[in-house]
Amino acid sequence: MQEPQVYLNGKFIPASEAALPIYDKGIVLGATVTQMTRTYGQKLFRSEAHIRRLYYSLRYASIEQVVSEKELVEISEELVSRNAELLQPDEELGLIQFSTAGKVPLYAGRVLSDEENRPTLCAHTFRLDFSYYADAMRQGYHVVTPSTRHIPPECIDAKMKYRSRLHWHIADSQTQQVDPKATSLLLDLQGNITECSGANFLLVRDGTIYSPTLRNILPGISRDVVIELAGKLGIPFKEQDLQLYDVVTADEAFMSSTPFGVCPATKVNGKPIADGKPGPIWKRLADAWSELVGLDIVKQITT
Amino acid sequence: MQEPQVYLNGKFIPASEAALPIYDKGIVLGATVTQMTRTYGQKLFRSEAHIRRLYYSLRYASIEQVVSEKELVEISEELVSRNAELLQPDEELGLIQFSTAGKVPLYAGRVLSDEENRPTLCAHTFRLDFSYYADAMRQGYHVVTPSTRHIPPECIDAKMKYRSRLHWHIADSQTQQVDPKATSLLLDLQGNITECSGANFLLVRDGTIYSPTLRNILPGISRDVVIELAGKLGIPFKEQDLQLYDVVTADEAFMSSTPFGVCPATKVNGKPIADGKPGPIWKRLADAWSELVGLDIVKQITT
Amino acid sequence: MQEPQVYLNGKFIPASEAALPIYDKGIVLGATVTQMTRTYGQKLFRSEAHIRRLYYSLRYASIEQVVSEKELVEISEELVSRNAELLQPDEELGLIQFSTAGKVPLYAGRVLSDEENRPTLCAHTFRLDFSYYADAMRQGYHVVTPSTRHIPPECIDAKMKYRSRLHWHIADSQTQQVDPKATSLLLDLQGNITECSGANFLLVRDGTIYSPTLRNILPGISRDVVIELAGKLGIPFKEQDLQLYDVVTADEAFMSSTPFGVCPATKVNGKPIADGKPGPIWKRLADAWSELVGLDIVKQITT
Amino acid sequence: MQEPQVYLNGKFIPASEAALPIYDKGIVLGATVTQMTRTYGQKLFRSEAHIRRLYYSLRYASIEQVVSEKELVEISEELVSRNAELLQPDEELGLIQFSTAGKVPLYAGRVLSDEENRPTLCAHTFRLDFSYYADAMRQGYHVVTPSTRHIPPECIDAKMKYRSRLHWHIADSQTQQVDPKATSLLLDLQGNITECSGANFLLVRDGTIYSPTLRNILPGISRDVVIELAGKLGIPFKEQDLQLYDVVTADEAFMSSTPFGVCPATKVNGKPIADGKPGPIWKRLADAWSELVGLDIVKQITT
Amino acid sequence: MQEPQVYLNGKFIPASEAALPIYDKGIVLGATVTQMTRTYGQKLFRSEAHIRRLYYSLRYASIEQVVSEKELVEISEELVSRNAELLQPDEELGLIQFSTAGKVPLYAGRVLSDEENRPTLCAHTFRLDFSYYADAMRQGYHVVTPSTRHIPPECIDAKMKYRSRLHWHIADSQTQQVDPKATSLLLDLQGNITECSGANFLLVRDGTIYSPTLRNILPGISRDVVIELAGKLGIPFKEQDLQLYDVVTADEAFMSSTPFGVCPATKVNGKPIADGKPGPIWKRLADAWSELVGLDIVKQITT
Amino acid sequence: MQEPQVYLNGKFIPASEAALPIYDKGIVLGATVTQMTRTYGQKLFRSEAHIRRLYYSLRYASIEQVVSEKELVEISEELVSRNAELLQPDEELGLIQFSTAGKVPLYAGRVLSDEENRPTLCAHTFRLDFSYYADAMRQGYHVVTPSTRHIPPECIDAKMKYRSRLHWHIADSQTQQVDPKATSLLLDLQGNITECSGANFLLVRDGTIYSPTLRNILPGISRDVVIELAGKLGIPFKEQDLQLYDVVTADEAFMSSTPFGVCPATKVNGKPIADGKPGPIWKRLADAWSELVGLDIVKQITT
Repeated sequence: MQEPQVYLNGKFIPASEAALPIYDKGIVLGATVTQMTRTYGQKLFRSEAHIRRLYYSLRYASIEQVVSEKELVEISEELVSRNAELLQPDEELGLIQFSTAGKVPLYAGRVLSDEENRPTLCAHTFRLDFSYYADAMRQGYHVVTPSTRHIPPECIDAKMKYRSRLHWHIADSQTQQVDPKATSLLLDLQGNITECSGANFLLVRDGTIYSPTLRNILPGISRDVVIELAGKLGIPFKEQDLQLYDVVTADEAFMSSTPFGVCPATKVNGKPIADGKPGPIWKRLADAWSELVGLDIVKQITT
Repeated sequence: MQEPQVYLNGKFIPASEAALPIYDKGIVLGATVTQMTRTYGQKLFRSEAHIRRLYYSLRYASIEQVVSEKELVEISEELVSRNAELLQPDEELGLIQFSTAGKVPLYAGRVLSDEENRPTLCAHTFRLDFSYYADAMRQGYHVVTPSTRHIPPECIDAKMKYRSRLHWHIADSQTQQVDPKATSLLLDLQGNITECSGANFLLVRDGTIYSPTLRNILPGISRDVVIELAGKLGIPFKEQDLQLYDVVTADEAFMSSTPFGVCPATKVNGKPIADGKPGPIWKRLADAWSELVGLDIVKQITT
Repeated sequence: MQEPQVYLNGKFIPASEAALPIYDKGIVLGATVTQMTRTYGQKLFRSEAHIRRLYYSLRYASIEQVVSEKELVEISEELVSRNAELLQPDEELGLIQFSTAGKVPLYAGRVLSDEENRPTLCAHTFRLDFSYYADAMRQGYHVVTPSTRHIPPECIDAKMKYRSRLHWHIADSQTQQVDPKATSLLLDLQGNITECSGANFLLVRDGTIYSPTLRNILPGISRDVVIELAGKLGIPFKEQDLQLYDVVTADEAFMSSTPFGVCPATKVNGKPIADGKPGPIWKRLADAWSELVGLDIVKQITT
Repeated sequence: MQEPQVYLNGKFIPASEAALPIYDKGIVLGATVTQMTRTYGQKLFRSEAHIRRLYYSLRYASIEQVVSEKELVEISEELVSRNAELLQPDEELGLIQFSTAGKVPLYAGRVLSDEENRPTLCAHTFRLDFSYYADAMRQGYHVVTPSTRHIPPECIDAKMKYRSRLHWHIADSQTQQVDPKATSLLLDLQGNITECSGANFLLVRDGTIYSPTLRNILPGISRDVVIELAGKLGIPFKEQDLQLYDVVTADEAFMSSTPFGVCPATKVNGKPIADGKPGPIWKRLADAWSELVGLDIVKQITT
Repeated sequence: MQEPQVYLNGKFIPASEAALPIYDKGIVLGATVTQMTRTYGQKLFRSEAHIRRLYYSLRYASIEQVVSEKELVEISEELVSRNAELLQPDEELGLIQFSTAGKVPLYAGRVLSDEENRPTLCAHTFRLDFSYYADAMRQGYHVVTPSTRHIPPECIDAKMKYRSRLHWHIADSQTQQVDPKATSLLLDLQGNITECSGANFLLVRDGTIYSPTLRNILPGISRDVVIELAGKLGIPFKEQDLQLYDVVTADEAFMSSTPFGVCPATKVNGKPIADGKPGPIWKRLADAWSELVGLDIVKQITT
Repeated sequence: MQEPQVYLNGKFIPASEAALPIYDKGIVLGATVTQMTRTYGQKLFRSEAHIRRLYYSLRYASIEQVVSEKELVEISEELVSRNAELLQPDEELGLIQFSTAGKVPLYAGRVLSDEENRPTLCAHTFRLDFSYYADAMRQGYHVVTPSTRHIPPECIDAKMKYRSRLHWHIADSQTQQVDPKATSLLLDLQGNITECSGANFLLVRDGTIYSPTLRNILPGISRDVVIELAGKLGIPFKEQDLQLYDVVTADEAFMSSTPFGVCPATKVNGKPIADGKPGPIWKRLADAWSELVGLDIVKQITT
């Protein structure tokens, strides 16, 4: 079977060879920023916007990438175009770009020259396995607030998409004690809700969509699409500090993320949100999203 | 030239082949716990204590390692014994063990079976490049308190030795604006001093050694050795919340860490600590350490 | 069947008549301070110490009780002496005293005179149902850290034993999602562990008992007994800020509270503490406690 | 004299018999949620909205009430209709509904069956004693910021109307040291103003009404009426974090609460707010409120 | 050479005689509130607005000034009119008013009568030395976030313009370690950006001007002018919590303050903001400001 | 009448001429560090220790004083020796040294040379007016916890004795609303007690003296004397976080400060501490202090 390719530090190589040396700061420190996008109809969705965010992250993380923003757009398109050839017609690709801060000179056993120690840059794709999200898309996610909290912006700012996320792993292991299929909705240090491990969280009250503020969340591109679609549909969108009470008493809740676009959240800490069923605002957004990308995003995932 | 070996997931392999697939959670999430020890006279120092700490970290991080604590002690000794053969007589090895939480099923494009998705375990060594520490050992470190803060324990507990440390990278980039050779002394969210990016920080006032409390720092094995040696030398050792004022007005300060044991800190935010020279308590501890390991630890690094 | 008596505002009345008007501030505001003690061999244990604490709480809560500390000691003894007559020889009594801040004038529909509106004072007993604790005493409690946090001292100080505890009810409902038999171990706002909903929590490392500091916990009388017994047994006892990591990696953990004295805690967030069995320090304390009160406290509860 | 009735757990009983057993969690833990409304012209005002809030509180507090929202609306109307018969023509009723989490099995001396241990539900009325508010309505409240702080949402969320309010009692005892007629304006843990012990607090600057955000306050129904009336009158209304400075330098301040609707606040910590007299925006709101309910709300209270 | 005059406690005196006794609370406690305005074309700009703010500060600081707001407006005009006579035609004056809380009775060695101990009131002017700001106006400020944080409002509210600013001095000494010409951009205790030592800080993203909220900043009169001019120019202006990430990734940033009106900020922690050059929104505001005051504010400072 | 002298920037001048120019940073920013000591029997008490602390403060505040520590000791003795000649035999002197960060170049209207802009240094004395403390010494202070909080160490560290204390002025104005003779006991941002506006606060429980930790308080020289005397008297002394509850339920409380040495505190927020009378531990310390300095410190103040 033919193998997908991976872009790594200037070269396209077979996926099975894509690996980082154990001295890479991405492994040693989690010093990595990243982005993820996907295709709809095997075409990349909002690729420039994702890469713009990646370069914001690089700037904030003090990682000086030699590949330019524009070059990465082209590399990404080239990669997707190559790997899409291996897909079935109804399949889609996920695309990840990440950059680490380079290698740890000490662990390499000698001081590395600047030439040798450029920040790592990688872009890779994977076939989107929709079965992973099908249940959630049909019945909604169960979110749980574990005691582990989100990292505050004065430590690592959540507006940067980064990979020092051991707290997510720990939070999820607490969450799965409640329900093996649940996903964590992390609180910040003041007890406000923030985001899920891998998705933005949004809720609805009295016809308005409410989002946590940008203090503690990723300004996700999928969330931007929600704002854009809500604007078109005439649904008000507000950012404010929200607490668990707001989730428990919401009329409706949902999540936004690259793999699924928008997906309902129907249970919180074991309690149904409203009637425990996917809500009408989510449905309208999903329909508008489907129209935007030219295919039924719910159907694609659930069938 | 012959190459050192690396232990990776049950096998000894050549160092140049030691790499992690880009789907490993160590890369994707920084979901990694680790330890580092070194040899003195090419013999491992406090290996069991380090590995005990690693297994505490694994337990806290919910990573279920199949290799037992005892087995890892043996693997480590075997590895050091093999790689020490490549050393010159006066050289020493650093030894790192780390374990990640396994692979990300999603990015692998399909759900992995439990067999396929065991936590990664790696042990590797490197020749300790003493020149890296020689200046600091002679004249003392310059520590700087950047505006980036340490991650609080309710997010990721610093008692666990983990690798989601992007904040260290960001902090150091701020610190190096002040002095390219300085190292970060991170404050916690309440403004207490915690630890340096890679070492415990200790100070001396009126003949007593003061350490930050364990709320926000690694209970480092080298720090344990300091406590043990201080006990033998009759030097009181106290843990309490300390602030920048305490560093600026200290009689003396030093750091403890595996590569150098104990190393003076003689400058903070551009100001000399006391007279800006390595202090007498550090000297007594370094001498006692040298006696403990049977070689002059300061001379080994500085020459 | 004969009925136990209750002391309420100066009178001994049948238990079935003991009730508070719905205008009482104990009901309207949870403005109530309380204590609980029990009998060993049908004799009250440390009654004066408990009542001393109650009067500290009254003072802090600005509730001016007309019954003196000494009088309440006598009332309590009288009550226990009366109600103990209804017990079987091997049964014991729990004794609760509580005082509310009086009635809410507004809800009573008219301004009450000072005469009419004295703080409520009540003392009542109940047969200790040991079966309620038998499993925990045999196998140890499962403690869980819910996302709900303990109330900080600048709001309501935990050193006062008070009854505004809706957060316990909410925390326990989260905890029981993990395990219906688990009990909540609440974190404070800085992520330190505090106390369980109804008991002090203690852990053991390297032969020393560690307790959270008094900033966020009740200085329980049973905890005082632990300190006293540990002193006699030569077991060091230290108060310091502790975090979840300390529980997960403890050698042993246990709880202290009036009904059971000391009881093991063997599981935290679904993970065994050490080997998941009641520990040796707990056993020594339970034995010493048994000696102190003249009966086997473990056997009494478990059989 | 004929006695008003009280609804308690399915029955209408005489008020003098309405009491809770001392084992009720409402007494033992303050585990109670509540609402309060009143009549205007002896007709209930916004009854459904209040009961909707009560059911949000029940849901958040994990109290599963068997009486439905709709049934409680009917029960409340029935109760008011019965008790209104005892009123003089110019009198009004206050109506309180509350639900506790049921009984404490332990203190009852035996495990209670689910049948026996349903959450308590009570609805009761009282004649509104306007003299209690007359001075404040004429001259304005004196608010004082005590050192006791409001409970943060991660402990007990203020959006839920609950009865674990010992901190209010303690705060008011501090406040009354300054002025026996003053009422507490609690700060949150970050030093923002929140709400008074029993009323929402609002201030005016440059013609705009400012409210603390919903993070730390009850979204009171009377406050909702203020928002509604302000909308009709074209007065802008904004929610944002406010501090003591904003109160001290406000153009005007007032409170909203069920008994009085809107009432001026004219003094803070001993200093007059603006000229120390009830302000014009309050007057316009009070007039609009009077029009809404068909009677002069200021006159009703002050005469 | 003729000397400017100073208003001090009711008298106009020569500047060289203007001094405070060392017992003044302004010296002993930093118990001083202040304002600063300047002339454009030798006429005071927004004098009433500044003095209104001063009186808010006096009220908040509990300093009871006997001179009325209106009188101080007149005194200020008189002072400027006198001192402007000493200027060259193209020169401008800075005007400072400050009031201290009076004298410390203790240090005076005896209790002072109320007559003797009125709050100090002073107004003084100085020739604006534009060369001090010329470089910043041309190339933009370099802002640095030191580890020293801004004082929170529950200690000293930043909406009051006060003179207990030792933290500014300490922060600037950290900042100047990075760059001797840099100015501090202080973070608040939650890691949000606040203000510079002497100016408001504003940034631009996607055509909107963003400001930190008023929780932690002075509502500067120059900032009010920015809001007013932005309104006229149709540029949206929003207040929200901002973090360092927002500065690092901004499209543009600038500061507002009395001496320079608006001035670009082009570097943060050593990194260029956007392309590191003064931005277009700043230019539009500076032009509009110039039009408002009838002279080119950039040219005035840079030439 | 002959006038005392003041040391100011290198010269001894008459007290009536001792003043700071209004451009001094001590006035403009409160950028001043200070110390206060006094005479016993007209001889300076612990002068070196106080001056050592002053130089720690200078170092922390980044004020580079040209006068050496040793020189200031001599200047201080010279000054006291001169001014003591004006005293009656039973009178004593207070001595204050302070240093500001120099002048503000901007407000001086031109850039000052380094020569012109040295940090201000001043030492002055005043006759100790014991009547100011007599009542407190006899009956004890009334301490009140205002809502204004102490400045945290990450803003301005309380271990430095500094003069940016507007919050003290604001706190005392709140405190004096409760009782015009009361003094403020400030809480820190976490609700722990810290220090009074001008004195350290200590309490006694079960025969042990408890002090707040050094995180938020001045390590006062008088407090050091208490520690020293307690050591001699065999009274245990412990530092730990303390809350209002600890004060309300203490066996005894007292304050330490230069003017009075140790003085009882007998009331908190309007409630008596214990029996509301000066306590026995205070008495023993005052006696030991008297012995140390060779005169009865209580009698000196109260008669």
